[in-house]
Amino acid sequence: MQKVLEANDNLALDIRSLLREKRVSMVNLISGPGSGKTTILEKTIPLLKEKYSIGIIEGDIETDRDAQRLKLFSLPMVLINTHGACHLNSGSILNALEALPLDDLDIIFVENVGNLVCPAEFDIGEMAKVAVLSTPEGDDKPSKYPLLFRESALVLLNKIDLLSAVDFNLHNFYDDLKRLNGCVSVIEMAATKKIGLEQWVQWLETTIIAKEESKTGGKC
Amino acid sequence: MQKVLEANDNLALDIRSLLREKRVSMVNLISGPGSGKTTILEKTIPLLKEKYSIGIIEGDIETDRDAQRLKLFSLPMVLINTHGACHLNSGSILNALEALPLDDLDIIFVENVGNLVCPAEFDIGEMAKVAVLSTPEGDDKPSKYPLLFRESALVLLNKIDLLSAVDFNLHNFYDDLKRLNGCVSVIEMAATKKIGLEQWVQWLETTIIAKEESKTGGKC
Repeated sequence: MQKVLEANDNLALDIRSLLREKRVSMVNLISGPGSGKTTILEKTIPLLKEKYSIGIIEGDIETDRDAQRLKLFSLPMVLINTHGACHLNSGSILNALEALPLDDLDIIFVENVGNLVCPAEFDIGEMAKVAVLSTPEGDDKPSKYPLLFRESALVLLNKIDLLSAVDFNLHNFYDDLKRLNGCVSVIEMAATKKIGLEQWVQWLETTIIAKEESKTGGKC
Repeated sequence: MQKVLEANDNLALDIRSLLREKRVSMVNLISGPGSGKTTILEKTIPLLKEKYSIGIIEGDIETDRDAQRLKLFSLPMVLINTHGACHLNSGSILNALEALPLDDLDIIFVENVGNLVCPAEFDIGEMAKVAVLSTPEGDDKPSKYPLLFRESALVLLNKIDLLSAVDFNLHNFYDDLKRLNGCVSVIEMAATKKIGLEQWVQWLETTIIAKEESKTGGKC
């Protein structure tokens, strides 16, 4: 396992150099199943695509369902089916990048496999990890899945419109999260209702796209 | 990986023999994070505990939060913290069983690590895998995470009370699920509202506790 991670991390360094050279920013979206990653991309792309060239890497265990949903934007996109593996790794990302027109792109969104555990362990050379958590999943998730929330530069707290219908204590959530990661940002979002999208686009523009220097997320 | 799985499966056979000898039924609850496994147990235990002796094995990456929630029932319980691993395996289950009073128990609930991928790959000697899916996660999850839904004897479709507030097409869900697994049962549930609990208890009594012969789930 240690060797697998080392090999992965070495390739991730190569990816980071390549993306810096090409001046492309890559964001790694990570969440459990059904938190709303694809929907967030569906709502985000229209707000960015006039101004920036966007590429997509779709990670899924099986099926092209998420890829099909994003296909209508006619953006450069690579689908990676992991066939059982619970995360993307830098090897598969490097292959995907070879199929994308890096010279023309400003930003690449990676939608990782729906999983709160494994994807956080694998550096894929991204500029930042963005965790998506939806309110029906419960406020205890940062404490129970600490690695992702420690590693992420931003948490999108999605399905905020369901807050009153589910058991989610915002105070406990912020408390636990800040204890794990003192410099993480949070945007409360309801992607289907277009709540929080403006802040998210602003975060992408100022923190990700405008940066010349690649960096890993979670550091202030 | 193949060797790890083989070693796991051999130990699972030992567990199955041990549980058959002790006449204890073990159910393996699997879901993504926040689908409601712990809440389902909180609501189920009071309905069973007068009639049956219940043991619990709580799987979590970190923290004893779920275990704390179930502690008030004063049942024999073992907490397994996997410290990063995304599933329970038969080795850790065998250790846990050694700490439980098997001669006195009728049923053991295993709450696996919140993850739709890895736990489905690891036989832990259970009589049946029970998948929990909550409606906010979306109707596409069986197709996207097919192994669990192929392997499960029962799906608890939880948070059914949120159906009108979320994007979940019941018809598509049943269609995809039945294509993957022709003999799976489904109970529509809202554990917090006590909807579906009676059916679930009935399923446990007739399919699990009453059976003398151990079997793996998902076969009709």
